[in-house]
Amino acid sequence: MSLLCPDAFLSPLAIDEAVTRALDEDLGRAGDVTSTATIPEGTRGRAVLAARKAGMIAGLPLAAAAFRKLDPAVEITGHQRDGAAVQSKTVLLTVAGDARALLAAERVALNFVGNLSGIATATAEFVRLVGHTRARVCCTRKTTPGLRAVQKYAVRCGGGFNHRFGLDDAILIKDNHIAVAGGVRAVLERAKAVAGLEVGLADAVLLDNMSPVTMKKAVEMVAGRLVIEASGGITHESAAAIAESGVDYLSSGAITHSSPNLDVGLDIEI
Amino acid sequence: MSLLCPDAFLSPLAIDEAVTRALDEDLGRAGDVTSTATIPEGTRGRAVLAARKAGMIAGLPLAAAAFRKLDPAVEITGHQRDGAAVQSKTVLLTVAGDARALLAAERVALNFVGNLSGIATATAEFVRLVGHTRARVCCTRKTTPGLRAVQKYAVRCGGGFNHRFGLDDAILIKDNHIAVAGGVRAVLERAKAVAGLEVGLADAVLLDNMSPVTMKKAVEMVAGRLVIEASGGITHESAAAIAESGVDYLSSGAITHSSPNLDVGLDIEI
Amino acid sequence: MSLLCPDAFLSPLAIDEAVTRALDEDLGRAGDVTSTATIPEGTRGRAVLAARKAGMIAGLPLAAAAFRKLDPAVEITGHQRDGAAVQSKTVLLTVAGDARALLAAERVALNFVGNLSGIATATAEFVRLVGHTRARVCCTRKTTPGLRAVQKYAVRCGGGFNHRFGLDDAILIKDNHIAVAGGVRAVLERAKAVAGLEVGLADAVLLDNMSPVTMKKAVEMVAGRLVIEASGGITHESAAAIAESGVDYLSSGAITHSSPNLDVGLDIEI
Amino acid sequence: MSLLCPDAFLSPLAIDEAVTRALDEDLGRAGDVTSTATIPEGTRGRAVLAARKAGMIAGLPLAAAAFRKLDPAVEITGHQRDGAAVQSKTVLLTVAGDARALLAAERVALNFVGNLSGIATATAEFVRLVGHTRARVCCTRKTTPGLRAVQKYAVRCGGGFNHRFGLDDAILIKDNHIAVAGGVRAVLERAKAVAGLEVGLADAVLLDNMSPVTMKKAVEMVAGRLVIEASGGITHESAAAIAESGVDYLSSGAITHSSPNLDVGLDIEI
Amino acid sequence: MSLLCPDAFLSPLAIDEAVTRALDEDLGRAGDVTSTATIPEGTRGRAVLAARKAGMIAGLPLAAAAFRKLDPAVEITGHQRDGAAVQSKTVLLTVAGDARALLAAERVALNFVGNLSGIATATAEFVRLVGHTRARVCCTRKTTPGLRAVQKYAVRCGGGFNHRFGLDDAILIKDNHIAVAGGVRAVLERAKAVAGLEVGLADAVLLDNMSPVTMKKAVEMVAGRLVIEASGGITHESAAAIAESGVDYLSSGAITHSSPNLDVGLDIEI
Amino acid sequence: MSLLCPDAFLSPLAIDEAVTRALDEDLGRAGDVTSTATIPEGTRGRAVLAARKAGMIAGLPLAAAAFRKLDPAVEITGHQRDGAAVQSKTVLLTVAGDARALLAAERVALNFVGNLSGIATATAEFVRLVGHTRARVCCTRKTTPGLRAVQKYAVRCGGGFNHRFGLDDAILIKDNHIAVAGGVRAVLERAKAVAGLEVGLADAVLLDNMSPVTMKKAVEMVAGRLVIEASGGITHESAAAIAESGVDYLSSGAITHSSPNLDVGLDIEI
Repeated sequence: MSLLCPDAFLSPLAIDEAVTRALDEDLGRAGDVTSTATIPEGTRGRAVLAARKAGMIAGLPLAAAAFRKLDPAVEITGHQRDGAAVQSKTVLLTVAGDARALLAAERVALNFVGNLSGIATATAEFVRLVGHTRARVCCTRKTTPGLRAVQKYAVRCGGGFNHRFGLDDAILIKDNHIAVAGGVRAVLERAKAVAGLEVGLADAVLLDNMSPVTMKKAVEMVAGRLVIEASGGITHESAAAIAESGVDYLSSGAITHSSPNLDVGLDIEI
Repeated sequence: MSLLCPDAFLSPLAIDEAVTRALDEDLGRAGDVTSTATIPEGTRGRAVLAARKAGMIAGLPLAAAAFRKLDPAVEITGHQRDGAAVQSKTVLLTVAGDARALLAAERVALNFVGNLSGIATATAEFVRLVGHTRARVCCTRKTTPGLRAVQKYAVRCGGGFNHRFGLDDAILIKDNHIAVAGGVRAVLERAKAVAGLEVGLADAVLLDNMSPVTMKKAVEMVAGRLVIEASGGITHESAAAIAESGVDYLSSGAITHSSPNLDVGLDIEI
Repeated sequence: MSLLCPDAFLSPLAIDEAVTRALDEDLGRAGDVTSTATIPEGTRGRAVLAARKAGMIAGLPLAAAAFRKLDPAVEITGHQRDGAAVQSKTVLLTVAGDARALLAAERVALNFVGNLSGIATATAEFVRLVGHTRARVCCTRKTTPGLRAVQKYAVRCGGGFNHRFGLDDAILIKDNHIAVAGGVRAVLERAKAVAGLEVGLADAVLLDNMSPVTMKKAVEMVAGRLVIEASGGITHESAAAIAESGVDYLSSGAITHSSPNLDVGLDIEI
Repeated sequence: MSLLCPDAFLSPLAIDEAVTRALDEDLGRAGDVTSTATIPEGTRGRAVLAARKAGMIAGLPLAAAAFRKLDPAVEITGHQRDGAAVQSKTVLLTVAGDARALLAAERVALNFVGNLSGIATATAEFVRLVGHTRARVCCTRKTTPGLRAVQKYAVRCGGGFNHRFGLDDAILIKDNHIAVAGGVRAVLERAKAVAGLEVGLADAVLLDNMSPVTMKKAVEMVAGRLVIEASGGITHESAAAIAESGVDYLSSGAITHSSPNLDVGLDIEI
Repeated sequence: MSLLCPDAFLSPLAIDEAVTRALDEDLGRAGDVTSTATIPEGTRGRAVLAARKAGMIAGLPLAAAAFRKLDPAVEITGHQRDGAAVQSKTVLLTVAGDARALLAAERVALNFVGNLSGIATATAEFVRLVGHTRARVCCTRKTTPGLRAVQKYAVRCGGGFNHRFGLDDAILIKDNHIAVAGGVRAVLERAKAVAGLEVGLADAVLLDNMSPVTMKKAVEMVAGRLVIEASGGITHESAAAIAESGVDYLSSGAITHSSPNLDVGLDIEI
Repeated sequence: MSLLCPDAFLSPLAIDEAVTRALDEDLGRAGDVTSTATIPEGTRGRAVLAARKAGMIAGLPLAAAAFRKLDPAVEITGHQRDGAAVQSKTVLLTVAGDARALLAAERVALNFVGNLSGIATATAEFVRLVGHTRARVCCTRKTTPGLRAVQKYAVRCGGGFNHRFGLDDAILIKDNHIAVAGGVRAVLERAKAVAGLEVGLADAVLLDNMSPVTMKKAVEMVAGRLVIEASGGITHESAAAIAESGVDYLSSGAITHSSPNLDVGLDIEI
């Protein structure tokens, strides 16, 4: 069984690169000195990676890659896969292999699953809160530096959608562009000349930091001609009211930059 | 004035590497298509990077590096430096240079300052809560993958201390080592044989998930012969009681993996 | 004056990475042994980079970066910029600096300007041929491996537009997806379920290897509800007829993978 | 059966590096969103990579490496190998494995085989045209930036020879060195002093942009004491006449920088 | 059997990185042209890697990794492992696989085993010379640039210990710090303020370039309260006398930067 | 004044890459903790890098690059340059700049100058010993892994010459090729067929581990038709006798893999 969330995108090269960098960072110049000092060479071990809180899982393929990188012959059994909603104490993976390798990869595996499941869990809660509306939950470019691809994937695991992956993905005009360019008219004229962008052809409009009441008016004005995205400090408390205004998307920076880790742990089976 | 926190360590190569990777991730294959489409070439801009909430600042050298990477001639004025406690609306940096470059580097700069100041702020709160005791606050290896060096630095900016930077830093024996090796005795005998480690020569002991009462007993038993570190789910609520047990260090994984970002923003000055 | 084409996007990090790799490849382990052997240290030189055939220019910022990488103090004067249509013998850049560095960077600079101007020139010819229609010229993912970002930029310099930069840019369903998935219906049902993609919401349709007559019928059927892109072996000979069918885009793989280099040269001024 | 051309050199690390970079460029941050959206997980597929025009093949080991990188268990059957002259519709490789992986690697595989077979085909045509003479065909440093090693290999697949791989390979004195150094005498004196290079010990002389008549005179003057290489705008039309002048090598920049891709395609077998 | 020295630490990622870099350096752009030219494709070979002088072995896992990188199916039999003391002509490894791959990896494999066994051998000789004392032998940061992790590992293979792996490992105050900071008092006051470092809490003291007599006095003064390390031009001749002064550690830069390679060779078995 | 040896080749990119890697290795995750802890921010320092033994200098450009990498504004005065023969206590460089940066770069700078000057010094001694003959001294591929380009450069600084930089540089047939291929005849026939190599066209012959007497006979047999290189365990003691046999080159692996470092140091000027 694949460990990847069935409906989410993640490049295998991105997994390999993120895991190698993280292991490199943790192993440093000398590697896992404690395991070498305390565990006889060749010792086999068996461990379970389990959730210690309820939540939505993301990051299992990265955990598996971390174990496999240090023990290519490790046996990994997936009991859950990314995108699963689990209870506390649910076993996610069983890993069996070289005991030193398991312990050397443990922290990297847990750091990925903890961070990404935290994001998936926060996303899923937003999705639940706006489930009675047509609004979709999406994330922003406010990700932890260096982890954009995997964090965007975690949002998908939680049932959310992805906004721009980077500055090169789409033209999105904000206050600062208008301020620098000298006004809305100047910006739009230039965008039309340079990129063929016409207001009538815009795909979407972003409503930033508006009240639900104002948003509702905006939804009525647009009348379906544009996709509308609401943004700006949306919390679990305010999400439902904003979604009920009729917007198409709720975007939250906090789900990627401020979600607490989901508590997960690795236990050696004796 | 240097933007680095006076008493904290951060390698200039680590700054360069982290910022380059983050810019690369955000600029993608085509770069900032919006700025190119909306801002005439050669336009100059001036912007202020300011805190939007009160907190402890960390990450300004990374923000500066991001702007400088895209406009080597940018002028940067530091109004604060890392390790400063600021109020909401405090201006941190002023940057003046090529407007397209400023906007292209904006998100990366804010993502670093937001993440690292969030960590520094959470650390500083722990430090405040245990200020009446001898306990020091420190972090763990539970960092966001790929950001260990800069997040450890952020903990220093907040007044905390750093535990092991990686698996190669020190021998630290935990439950899983004991489980794999077949018991405490086996672990200690092997560690003595291999690494010359003797219990009497251990530098420190980690008390994991104990109550303040139990910790106090442990402190009394150790009687100053070892450094004692308390660990395991310590929160802002429980910190003071634990510190009062007499331990030397309180270590928290949450300050690096689960601190919410500090809200910071960049505004173009007109 | 910037050397970049005013209306085209290119990340400064992409320039740096492409130029460093190319210099590394050419300098090898020992560097430019001929210049060291024949030119006294410290010799200054002045050279002109000029077109030896008429064409549309692209790649000057990469040429400049190559010279600057080997002589940070080189003086570069841009006489033309990317996106300029020039006659044979037009001087593009003047470079003055350390003579060894100029000669060591020469081939890399010329290889970039030759390849990218070749692409821009071929693109511009397509643009001219369909200038009496509403059709726009665009490129594909059939680029030379490792050069996608800069070759896509060259297409922009020639007046063309860019299709997907990579597999992650947009959903584009082709014959092979349909063959693997077991038919059109299966593909569309799955795409709807997974990505929320509905036929009525598709942005564009690709007409592959159709005759102008068939394309005209397709244009009439679609009646403006979708963007139509014609593709498949379009040549300078067939471009006008296809464009006259009313399609919105003509896409050509050949402009990036099979355009001959524009002849450019570097001459030392004595 | 190895897919490499029997008599040509290519480092396995060079293959791995070129393919990884190209896949990375195509998969971007999110990977192949279309395959994920349209093809159920775990679907198996079988595809044939075939020539769509007659030509000389090069690049199959890179194509195989691309498929293997995304599906380590893919089964690859080589029906031809690099250096084979094939007719249109000749099947080159059969690949069977995870369908999503096959489609995600398709474009990278085709871009390599198309580019390198185009070079091999153009080389082979030059070789054929001068087959009645003693002249050998070779390439230059005018390669596509970033692809020198693999393009030089493609020239070998086409029956050609390789000139310098980089600036560090041999001393080759050209006009610009003479211009900078202040004349032929100065260049030779310095080269003798620095590198022990004496005219009488030179291995080869390059005749650049001379007519066949002039070249013949040069060949007679040299009388076998030096290897003679003819260079400068040699085309399929002029090759035979130049080769008949008696030179040892014909070198062409165009075979690496301006050969059109050979048309190759991948078809899913149903 | 693992080839790693049982009690020494080395990260598997460090092995992979060092070996890939070394192969890349040796294979260059075109690979092993001699093996391609002289050995028919598919030829199998069998070779023995043996010591040609007596010594202490280190580096076998790197040799094995080099062969495996060029022939993933190579069969490797370890007759010795790192940390073994061997006589001249002792067989260390047998490798059987693709003959071209064996010869292409030969030099890299030998360069690693030669360099690291040279270090291990020199270390072991120091260890032997001070074996009648309590002193331990350790190395410094005076390693060959780029090889610190593997050279420190080689010291462990020889029975030595490792000092700081890098500048970030521990605070070590030397003459130059004192000179810059304006005296011992200034340095200590600042170190106390910044890093909480108190003289009474220092772990160790370094006695640099002192005579055995002076060292003995220092040992008596310290009376066990600090670990004492002797350093500065210690040779095989002077080691015993210094060790007998009672110091805890002898540190030598020469064992990593100036040990001659151990002579090892690879012979094809016919 | 350039610090590079006037007649030796070294790519600026190779310098940058080697120095960055070495600094990265020494600074680790946290940087120079001692300088941060003991030296107030902004302190300026001035230091001299000097030889502590007589020898031939190599590596100053790498030392300068190390200081500049950590303090871009450092002022560097070259008192000597690579290729200079100096007495003990000769000042090589003066550096003035940020004191923390000077101390953080010190070890990397010294490690490069020590290693490379050691090689240059050993080479120069060989050159002196054979100065009365026509023999030239050259190095092999037996370099320290990862440092080939800079160590080959050091040999040039010492007055030596460079053999192959890597396996891709030239065809060199050795015992193992003959053993694998099944004899001299088989090797030569294949080499002729594949690479057009004929014995009569070979450039050079390698005499491995022969006595001076045997070498002299070989020199007489070859009678100037081939370049002759003597190789195999040549020492300072045996060099003159071997050179007097009339060979063209003496090649030594030991000068790159076993030369002791030249003793160099950095002293803060007060």
